[in-house]
Amino acid sequence: MDITTLIGILGAFGIIIGAILTGGEIGPFIDVPSVLIVVGGTFFVTFSQVTLGDFLGSFVLGLKSFLYKVDDPLQLIEESVQMADIARKNGLLALEGQEISNHFMKKGISLCVDGHDPSLVKKMLESENRLMLVRHENGIRMFTNMATMAPAMGMIGTLVGLVQMLSNMSDPAAIGPAMAVALLTTLYGAIIANAFAQPVADKLTRATELEDLNNRLIMETISAIQEGMNPRVLEQLLSTYLTNAKRPSQE
Amino acid sequence: MDITTLIGILGAFGIIIGAILTGGEIGPFIDVPSVLIVVGGTFFVTFSQVTLGDFLGSFVLGLKSFLYKVDDPLQLIEESVQMADIARKNGLLALEGQEISNHFMKKGISLCVDGHDPSLVKKMLESENRLMLVRHENGIRMFTNMATMAPAMGMIGTLVGLVQMLSNMSDPAAIGPAMAVALLTTLYGAIIANAFAQPVADKLTRATELEDLNNRLIMETISAIQEGMNPRVLEQLLSTYLTNAKRPSQE
Amino acid sequence: MDITTLIGILGAFGIIIGAILTGGEIGPFIDVPSVLIVVGGTFFVTFSQVTLGDFLGSFVLGLKSFLYKVDDPLQLIEESVQMADIARKNGLLALEGQEISNHFMKKGISLCVDGHDPSLVKKMLESENRLMLVRHENGIRMFTNMATMAPAMGMIGTLVGLVQMLSNMSDPAAIGPAMAVALLTTLYGAIIANAFAQPVADKLTRATELEDLNNRLIMETISAIQEGMNPRVLEQLLSTYLTNAKRPSQE
Amino acid sequence: MDITTLIGILGAFGIIIGAILTGGEIGPFIDVPSVLIVVGGTFFVTFSQVTLGDFLGSFVLGLKSFLYKVDDPLQLIEESVQMADIARKNGLLALEGQEISNHFMKKGISLCVDGHDPSLVKKMLESENRLMLVRHENGIRMFTNMATMAPAMGMIGTLVGLVQMLSNMSDPAAIGPAMAVALLTTLYGAIIANAFAQPVADKLTRATELEDLNNRLIMETISAIQEGMNPRVLEQLLSTYLTNAKRPSQE
Amino acid sequence: MDITTLIGILGAFGIIIGAILTGGEIGPFIDVPSVLIVVGGTFFVTFSQVTLGDFLGSFVLGLKSFLYKVDDPLQLIEESVQMADIARKNGLLALEGQEISNHFMKKGISLCVDGHDPSLVKKMLESENRLMLVRHENGIRMFTNMATMAPAMGMIGTLVGLVQMLSNMSDPAAIGPAMAVALLTTLYGAIIANAFAQPVADKLTRATELEDLNNRLIMETISAIQEGMNPRVLEQLLSTYLTNAKRPSQE
Repeated sequence: MDITTLIGILGAFGIIIGAILTGGEIGPFIDVPSVLIVVGGTFFVTFSQVTLGDFLGSFVLGLKSFLYKVDDPLQLIEESVQMADIARKNGLLALEGQEISNHFMKKGISLCVDGHDPSLVKKMLESENRLMLVRHENGIRMFTNMATMAPAMGMIGTLVGLVQMLSNMSDPAAIGPAMAVALLTTLYGAIIANAFAQPVADKLTRATELEDLNNRLIMETISAIQEGMNPRVLEQLLSTYLTNAKRPSQE
Repeated sequence: MDITTLIGILGAFGIIIGAILTGGEIGPFIDVPSVLIVVGGTFFVTFSQVTLGDFLGSFVLGLKSFLYKVDDPLQLIEESVQMADIARKNGLLALEGQEISNHFMKKGISLCVDGHDPSLVKKMLESENRLMLVRHENGIRMFTNMATMAPAMGMIGTLVGLVQMLSNMSDPAAIGPAMAVALLTTLYGAIIANAFAQPVADKLTRATELEDLNNRLIMETISAIQEGMNPRVLEQLLSTYLTNAKRPSQE
Repeated sequence: MDITTLIGILGAFGIIIGAILTGGEIGPFIDVPSVLIVVGGTFFVTFSQVTLGDFLGSFVLGLKSFLYKVDDPLQLIEESVQMADIARKNGLLALEGQEISNHFMKKGISLCVDGHDPSLVKKMLESENRLMLVRHENGIRMFTNMATMAPAMGMIGTLVGLVQMLSNMSDPAAIGPAMAVALLTTLYGAIIANAFAQPVADKLTRATELEDLNNRLIMETISAIQEGMNPRVLEQLLSTYLTNAKRPSQE
Repeated sequence: MDITTLIGILGAFGIIIGAILTGGEIGPFIDVPSVLIVVGGTFFVTFSQVTLGDFLGSFVLGLKSFLYKVDDPLQLIEESVQMADIARKNGLLALEGQEISNHFMKKGISLCVDGHDPSLVKKMLESENRLMLVRHENGIRMFTNMATMAPAMGMIGTLVGLVQMLSNMSDPAAIGPAMAVALLTTLYGAIIANAFAQPVADKLTRATELEDLNNRLIMETISAIQEGMNPRVLEQLLSTYLTNAKRPSQE
Repeated sequence: MDITTLIGILGAFGIIIGAILTGGEIGPFIDVPSVLIVVGGTFFVTFSQVTLGDFLGSFVLGLKSFLYKVDDPLQLIEESVQMADIARKNGLLALEGQEISNHFMKKGISLCVDGHDPSLVKKMLESENRLMLVRHENGIRMFTNMATMAPAMGMIGTLVGLVQMLSNMSDPAAIGPAMAVALLTTLYGAIIANAFAQPVADKLTRATELEDLNNRLIMETISAIQEGMNPRVLEQLLSTYLTNAKRPSQE
């Protein structure tokens, strides 16, 4: 899953650098004060929008957008049906000690084995999933903020450059280059927003959606196991989580 | 259904090319590096926003916007009433083997025939429909992202061109053409977004809405069949899915 | 109801033409290729966003924004109370043959007379109203799309004009007029969006809202008639649909 | 309540006029055709977006933003507790003839005294409040439309001015002043939107929110009176409508 | 919690001033009339959008964004489990006199001790929390309004400056500096919006979200205590409010 975000962002940067080199040298595109105002300004502003815990948590989540591994629903369904089979034949307690890779299903099965009431199990799993969503949304928001604030900082930098250029127009030959420098912050802001922050935010949103779908599938499974649903029926119910192409042939 | 999107997009491109040719040659409007930065940049950025599976799935869905065939509700209603008639006269089992063209109704009827509980059938069909919506929304999102990112890449390309032009203004005669080239990426971005990506996204949204309406109509039918509703009453209930003009005269 | 939209749109066009004539001749504001790119481009793009049925239906709905006649709630309430009176005194069957001008109330009363179950009547009327809303929203969307796409097409036209002007700046005297022509498409796009498409979309939205309110009022009436509510109490309940100024004095 | 909107709008206009006078004379800022295109165009467009009844109603509502008086919740709570006390000691009928300043509470108490069923009273009050919200939202929408349309008309006016200026550039000295005049409509549009229409819309939204909160408080009271809740408990429940600072000390 | 907002806003201002000093003197960036039009105009417009009470309340809330201290959920959970333990062993009355730091939990426990009905306690706490959210949203809105209105005022100021400059272009040397001054208001507006108002609004939104989560946790606790839930089960349920990293090892 991580591969698209990494390739995509590197590719976009590559394309932009390629476009610069096709038209001339890269020299005029590098200006340290402009980098500082956009990167530094965006950093401080996004920092001021969150708590310290959020700030650190968002970096961890951001890394995840490159490394994130969401379980394949097909495999989850297989495991779910297997669990339902065991529970139906040998009782809920037989589920104890089964190897389960998915963290959320592990928690659900363990609550079943502990003999908690179905409504309590449902409440706990829903609370767990809902709060996962709240945490992820908060982390994603930092990247969305960055995508809003980087162009704003770019515009502020360009305005500063324009005011400086306009207050001192004694040398006409200097106007062009001064304006080129002024535009650099707008360019940096647009690149940070569109080739980094927004894609990371969107990818995390998508990964969270997939995790939410998996968790809903698992909640269906746990509740089906507790009410003793027929494993074949459960399989049919869960297969709605797959595209038609991926579904095992239903007879 | 496909015909409007194909005609519309071809027509819009035709109009734009016509406008270019009316005012002069097409030569100054073609610049390979500008095409690369907008098309390539948009490709990489939208690629980074999704998973690999989403990316491939969206292309399939995008093609559908040209070929998509949503069933006519009038025909679905006829078929529904017929099924209800058969079930009422000969029982649910008589529905087995009936030819049904709509995939979703086929699934619903088959669940009825299998003798599943009405509440379970409803749950399965709702889950099937809800997850179809989730999958389509995800596919549509890639085209919406494209419609946002193409102009952003166009603006980045124009800023790159402007900085190059402004850093080197020794030859006044070159300023005009250099700026013309710089504007090309903005033009490309606007065309990709408004004459391709956004229309495809909107058409897919509309097709999904129509499919959702059909599926809701079918869910009403299945539930009516299971509770043994009078086929005439069902017909009246389903006729609300049609505009007044299309309704059979109600007596 | 139609009079505000017709007057408003004509008035806005009149004001704009007046402003043009105050400042000089209308000649420089008319450019056939510019009209074609904006009107034609907007036509093709909005055409590609919908199905053929939607496209035709939206025109009919658009016309309605000029001719639309939504029933006066005050009159509906009078009619409702009268119906409730009759039903209370002489039974539901006495409602048969009553003259009812509103199409939706007619349908509701006819369902009552047919002796359908209150919950089924409610379901049918809610379905009818909900699907009216869906159809209208879809028709409105085409005008909203037009309001988004006309300025986009205007911008594309202006960019095309700018690129043509900038690639060929040998005659300085031609620059001004060429740029004037380039700006025309932006002007046309802004006028189509703000003085035609958006107002029509907003007016249709408002008319749909009024029709929805009327239909809710009627659903309250039908359900009150079926449960035999006192007509005086019904009148008081329905009077909440009126502003205080319009309410009959309540004693 | 009215004082902030009146002071705020006058203050903002004062600041803008002050800024103009600091930099020179007010003469170049007054141009009658520009006023006509922005004010007249905005008038006609917003007129075309509504029905005649909405148009008149919105003016009345707009005036209210300057004069609006929403009841103080603290006082409403006192009155509520007093009513609950009387009803508890002497029965619901003792509420008849009590002086109640708030229109909505008056209606609620009168429904109680008439001996209507609690669920019917609740339904009527909810309907009354919901339809008040619908009416206010509709009135607010006209000011929001104005805030969108004034800048659009300003832009159309500026484009008209630019096209006129660019088509006729024979006298270079006239370019500056012509462009100044062209910009005036954009300036007017921005002032109408930001220093008048948007603030009025926001203030009305806030006043509506406060009235909605009061009405909810009153609905809690009426329902508590009908179920004979202890007035002390009711007071505690209603005190959640106040900030901590305003609450009477709870013992 | 306060530290990020204070550091972030100071840092962003520092970066912008640093960027100005790198490119020249700070002199051309200070213009008192420009400060007045942006700060004064924004003040008056935001003042006109609210009631007097809102205006004062928002300042108090704004200060909170720097000083706000939201309780640590880990500590709340410990306290909750302890309360549940005491209530289970010694009855609800034993909770009287327990030291509780969180204001909302204190209120909830005190309602339990008073022996109110669980459904009434729930209603009161939900009302308390809901109205806290309404109050905070209202306070946050003033900062969001400021973030919208400051750039609008900046644009109005720039338009005023441009009109003045364009009406009087007799001295070409004065054009540059006049335009520099005109741009200052846009710069001020962008800085106020992006480096102050928006971050404060976002931080307050986040703090409100955290307080809402804590209050929901507390409502779960109170309701669990009233129904006598096993404290170990309660601990497990509440631990869903923590990230995995912060959870005590669950055995």
